[in-house]
Amino acid sequence: MDYKTLLENAKRNIETCKVCPECNGKACRGQIPGVGGKGTGSGFIRNYDELRKIKINMDTLYSIDEVDTSIELFGKNFKYPVFAAPIGAVKLNYGKLYNDYEYQMAIIQGCKNSGVVGFTGDGVKDETYEDPLKVIAENDGWGVPTIKPWKKEEILRKIKLAEESGALAVAMDIDAAGLALLGMQGKPVSPKPVEEMQEIISSTDLPFILKGIMTVNGAKKALEAGAYGIVVSNHGGRVLDETPSTVEVLPEIVEEVKGKMKIFIDGGIRSGLDIFKVIALGADAVLIGRPYAVAVYGGGTEGVELYTHKLGKELYETMLMSGAKTLKDINEDKVKILK
Amino acid sequence: MDYKTLLENAKRNIETCKVCPECNGKACRGQIPGVGGKGTGSGFIRNYDELRKIKINMDTLYSIDEVDTSIELFGKNFKYPVFAAPIGAVKLNYGKLYNDYEYQMAIIQGCKNSGVVGFTGDGVKDETYEDPLKVIAENDGWGVPTIKPWKKEEILRKIKLAEESGALAVAMDIDAAGLALLGMQGKPVSPKPVEEMQEIISSTDLPFILKGIMTVNGAKKALEAGAYGIVVSNHGGRVLDETPSTVEVLPEIVEEVKGKMKIFIDGGIRSGLDIFKVIALGADAVLIGRPYAVAVYGGGTEGVELYTHKLGKELYETMLMSGAKTLKDINEDKVKILK
Amino acid sequence: MDYKTLLENAKRNIETCKVCPECNGKACRGQIPGVGGKGTGSGFIRNYDELRKIKINMDTLYSIDEVDTSIELFGKNFKYPVFAAPIGAVKLNYGKLYNDYEYQMAIIQGCKNSGVVGFTGDGVKDETYEDPLKVIAENDGWGVPTIKPWKKEEILRKIKLAEESGALAVAMDIDAAGLALLGMQGKPVSPKPVEEMQEIISSTDLPFILKGIMTVNGAKKALEAGAYGIVVSNHGGRVLDETPSTVEVLPEIVEEVKGKMKIFIDGGIRSGLDIFKVIALGADAVLIGRPYAVAVYGGGTEGVELYTHKLGKELYETMLMSGAKTLKDINEDKVKILK
Amino acid sequence: MDYKTLLENAKRNIETCKVCPECNGKACRGQIPGVGGKGTGSGFIRNYDELRKIKINMDTLYSIDEVDTSIELFGKNFKYPVFAAPIGAVKLNYGKLYNDYEYQMAIIQGCKNSGVVGFTGDGVKDETYEDPLKVIAENDGWGVPTIKPWKKEEILRKIKLAEESGALAVAMDIDAAGLALLGMQGKPVSPKPVEEMQEIISSTDLPFILKGIMTVNGAKKALEAGAYGIVVSNHGGRVLDETPSTVEVLPEIVEEVKGKMKIFIDGGIRSGLDIFKVIALGADAVLIGRPYAVAVYGGGTEGVELYTHKLGKELYETMLMSGAKTLKDINEDKVKILK
Repeated sequence: MDYKTLLENAKRNIETCKVCPECNGKACRGQIPGVGGKGTGSGFIRNYDELRKIKINMDTLYSIDEVDTSIELFGKNFKYPVFAAPIGAVKLNYGKLYNDYEYQMAIIQGCKNSGVVGFTGDGVKDETYEDPLKVIAENDGWGVPTIKPWKKEEILRKIKLAEESGALAVAMDIDAAGLALLGMQGKPVSPKPVEEMQEIISSTDLPFILKGIMTVNGAKKALEAGAYGIVVSNHGGRVLDETPSTVEVLPEIVEEVKGKMKIFIDGGIRSGLDIFKVIALGADAVLIGRPYAVAVYGGGTEGVELYTHKLGKELYETMLMSGAKTLKDINEDKVKILK
Repeated sequence: MDYKTLLENAKRNIETCKVCPECNGKACRGQIPGVGGKGTGSGFIRNYDELRKIKINMDTLYSIDEVDTSIELFGKNFKYPVFAAPIGAVKLNYGKLYNDYEYQMAIIQGCKNSGVVGFTGDGVKDETYEDPLKVIAENDGWGVPTIKPWKKEEILRKIKLAEESGALAVAMDIDAAGLALLGMQGKPVSPKPVEEMQEIISSTDLPFILKGIMTVNGAKKALEAGAYGIVVSNHGGRVLDETPSTVEVLPEIVEEVKGKMKIFIDGGIRSGLDIFKVIALGADAVLIGRPYAVAVYGGGTEGVELYTHKLGKELYETMLMSGAKTLKDINEDKVKILK
Repeated sequence: MDYKTLLENAKRNIETCKVCPECNGKACRGQIPGVGGKGTGSGFIRNYDELRKIKINMDTLYSIDEVDTSIELFGKNFKYPVFAAPIGAVKLNYGKLYNDYEYQMAIIQGCKNSGVVGFTGDGVKDETYEDPLKVIAENDGWGVPTIKPWKKEEILRKIKLAEESGALAVAMDIDAAGLALLGMQGKPVSPKPVEEMQEIISSTDLPFILKGIMTVNGAKKALEAGAYGIVVSNHGGRVLDETPSTVEVLPEIVEEVKGKMKIFIDGGIRSGLDIFKVIALGADAVLIGRPYAVAVYGGGTEGVELYTHKLGKELYETMLMSGAKTLKDINEDKVKILK
Repeated sequence: MDYKTLLENAKRNIETCKVCPECNGKACRGQIPGVGGKGTGSGFIRNYDELRKIKINMDTLYSIDEVDTSIELFGKNFKYPVFAAPIGAVKLNYGKLYNDYEYQMAIIQGCKNSGVVGFTGDGVKDETYEDPLKVIAENDGWGVPTIKPWKKEEILRKIKLAEESGALAVAMDIDAAGLALLGMQGKPVSPKPVEEMQEIISSTDLPFILKGIMTVNGAKKALEAGAYGIVVSNHGGRVLDETPSTVEVLPEIVEEVKGKMKIFIDGGIRSGLDIFKVIALGADAVLIGRPYAVAVYGGGTEGVELYTHKLGKELYETMLMSGAKTLKDINEDKVKILK
């Protein structure tokens, strides 16, 4: 299978997504359930568009033996600085082909086979969280469960389950705090003050990742709460319309917390070139959401591997063409931010 | 009824407006009579577009009990900082379904039922001003009549009628001063110097709102004239083409008069997110025009209520997602203005 | 006849121009012969687009008796600061309905009847220059002949003819210096150094206008040469592709020569609002080209009058809505230049 | 034959290129093999678009005898500062009409006949490099062979062949270093450190041109390596997606190395106006790629001559219209860079 075939398969298999030539949030704007951004879709669209304004400084006058795309996180070594973002309720949002267990199996296995890791999701029903946990357990803990900002006791309970699954780390998408729909179904979510987050994070020895940070203040509070890392994320534009893009808030967050905690980022990242760009701006690694779903619907476990290696190859080439031998060599001098 | 049904009804019931997915002034440009902006429609279009350049800084790491969207104005408490803008001559501009009395009844009642207030309009014929006044009187004064800049005696007479109706406040759309058409029908309008405005405003104890301020100088003169508040407004682009948008003149006006008088704003505000944005830039409250007309034609009194609560819910969510517990917490730090 | 009918007539009568809703140079790009700008048409297009970025600061809180749109030039008083730009070879560029004599008759008479003045053109054949001169003579000298940058003797001869016609002033479109086509037909044109221009200008007592100035240096040289005024013009984008727009070079030219000579401007000016804008930036008056041709083909002499008064009325309204009682009151504070 | 006919012929003869009215990289984005830019095509597209943002300052008030467009390079005099860029594998990228020998014959002869010079290409097979060399030899050395960054021995061997052909100069497209495809076919390419480049360049007395420099650092290293000149180039967007445009990195490179080595540039240059612009920004001469291929497929040798003289005439006119008598007079004051 090549990537073109994968896309054609995905086009047939996904009911809600057009698998556009450029996955930029325009055709699907406002489609929730579905794959779009909320409201005008501007959060998703701007994520994609702003990444286009960062350009690569090409320079091939240097000596090189080998390019190394690997990264160490959670005490483990990964082949590329890439994670599959948590996606849940796939029957609702993508179509009836897979349930969450099947979907996550493709993600977790495909990621593991290609040297990276997938995040899994959470929901009102227990199985939405627990089915993917089983997949993680069946794959030597090769996954990061992501918990919603429920009441504290519920969170602590789910963290314990994550520990039991052998997961490498655990995450919370704190930006799901405004999903009134969850409260209506009897499982309210809410914003969390630093003190409560401290209590939650200190309850486990697992590295804890706070997903959904979009301001310097938010990043500082995450650090104060003891997080291992943050994901600079606007949830793909699905929890609040008209946020800035993630890449335009990244530099100010980097300036404040770089080196003190890990900085992940998602939103509009499509290629190895995009990965290169955000690392140049100070991110440690990326999460990628929708294109991984396309990979699953277009090729299952094999599709996930194919897409992961495609990303890796593009990152490799971009490093080669700009004189970066390791991820640490990718710095601000290697990109040009267009005005 | 849900909002989608409301829009479908409106599409059937309005003869001049396409009820576009984004109410941005493009499809209707130049249509007067009708719902468009004058000439190239740029005043209307820019109002909408410039609001898209303000983004919300999402932060959900804080402690919260309850979000309060209420505001106190004219010594009364309102559920949301929202007013329906004055719209008149609806048969001419929207279609034959309603006359001005019926239209205003839906506005005034719908607003009152949902905890906010509507403005009413004025025109060459006496009934254009007086019919809506009856509606206000029948609804415990729950409305703000808006008088055109006629000759002084006519204005003073109409202010007395407003007082008799029990209206909460009275307004003048001073930017109607260039409507030569009114003069041709025997009722000339004209710009008003500060001295004349002082005389007019001091003739009543009602809070007096000057609508149609687009410059710092204009705001200072309104303050000098004794106005309770101003509406930063370009009349939806209907009195002069090629003005700036209201949101781009707002900050300089806020810097000059904030705290000395109330600052309302209209122009392109469509959602609770937009309300949040202009409050962050220093406005006290907003007026919304065309979408309220859509609400009337799509659902009458019930439509007005539905749309008002939709706005309120969006404002509530935006406050929740950015850590604002009351309107006073919505400040410049909570938005990002894109370059 | 109203303006809508005029446009419909013009659409039928002009063979080369689509009479677009916005006359912005896009549909006709590259069409020479025809009405377009040269090459990509960018000179024409940018003229129009950049004017859209200047906005009017509306303010109606002031005292006003009457708005006066008149201007004094060449010792005469004109109703509006408006001139019809020179257009020649109309059979070639517009269609077979009119010859240059008939075309200019409509322009010169229509302008005179509405209180303004038209420029006339020049070409390889003697009659292209001399036929319009007859029209000027038949209308009490109410016109400004425009001479191409031929060899000096030819220019001096044509200036004498202009004097004999009783013309108010005489002009030269110095930016025609690169039209190689003219040289091929045996009448070469060329750039002119200051010394030669001094000799030419001092040969006559008529006010001399240099048309086609796009730089501060050019304006200084025109002043040194003794010109009565300049026209900031890129020849509607028809002599060189990819020039700046006229309105974006206007401010720096104004800063250098304002008050020392008259500053006219053309390029993309379509309405009284556009006239207001360039006067606010320091121009004394405007030339308008293509829309006057549309007026001729849509309504002859009457069309020219109708369009002139339309411009005048728009200028009047804009002055009324911004507190400018005379042209001198239109200054930089009355516009906002968008970034 | 005129240029319009040439374009029509080309449209018929090229299988992969639509010969668009504006050759801007949009219709062909991503088409490799073919004529497009890699991936999203943004490298090609931005080259073209950014050149549109530079405008010509028109001034025709000066004395002029003759405009001289000639330039001296490699100790020879050329009629225009124009070179045909190296294009190879034309059967694959353009269609079956010509093989590389035939294609290069049209380029080399057409260029020679019109007073300029063409570059030739290289590839995995020996004949891809050597067939064009024969053409150069048959045309008195009137060509510049371009070698890929192979292993050093292979490069040195090919330089010797270039010398034997009598070529005026020799070049290397160092930005081909990332073409993994070449390695798969048994001929790996790679980035080259300064030391290796010094050894390569010092092996020959021919002027050596390094093509594919996009950063100040790269330019400094090329200078250190002893290059006669560089080509500021992103390879038409075909080796790495999402690079800056060449014209936006040109000024900083000029500031660093101007006068110390020759600065060529390619990317989106289509007309004599574009040539004027980049010379104003500090380039010495330009390479033009795709439009020369269109000229070959549209008119063979004659087409190449026709296009070259078209460029020359446009450059001549632009110099005439801006007061530049020689290429040295074309400086920054003669252009305006739009913000």
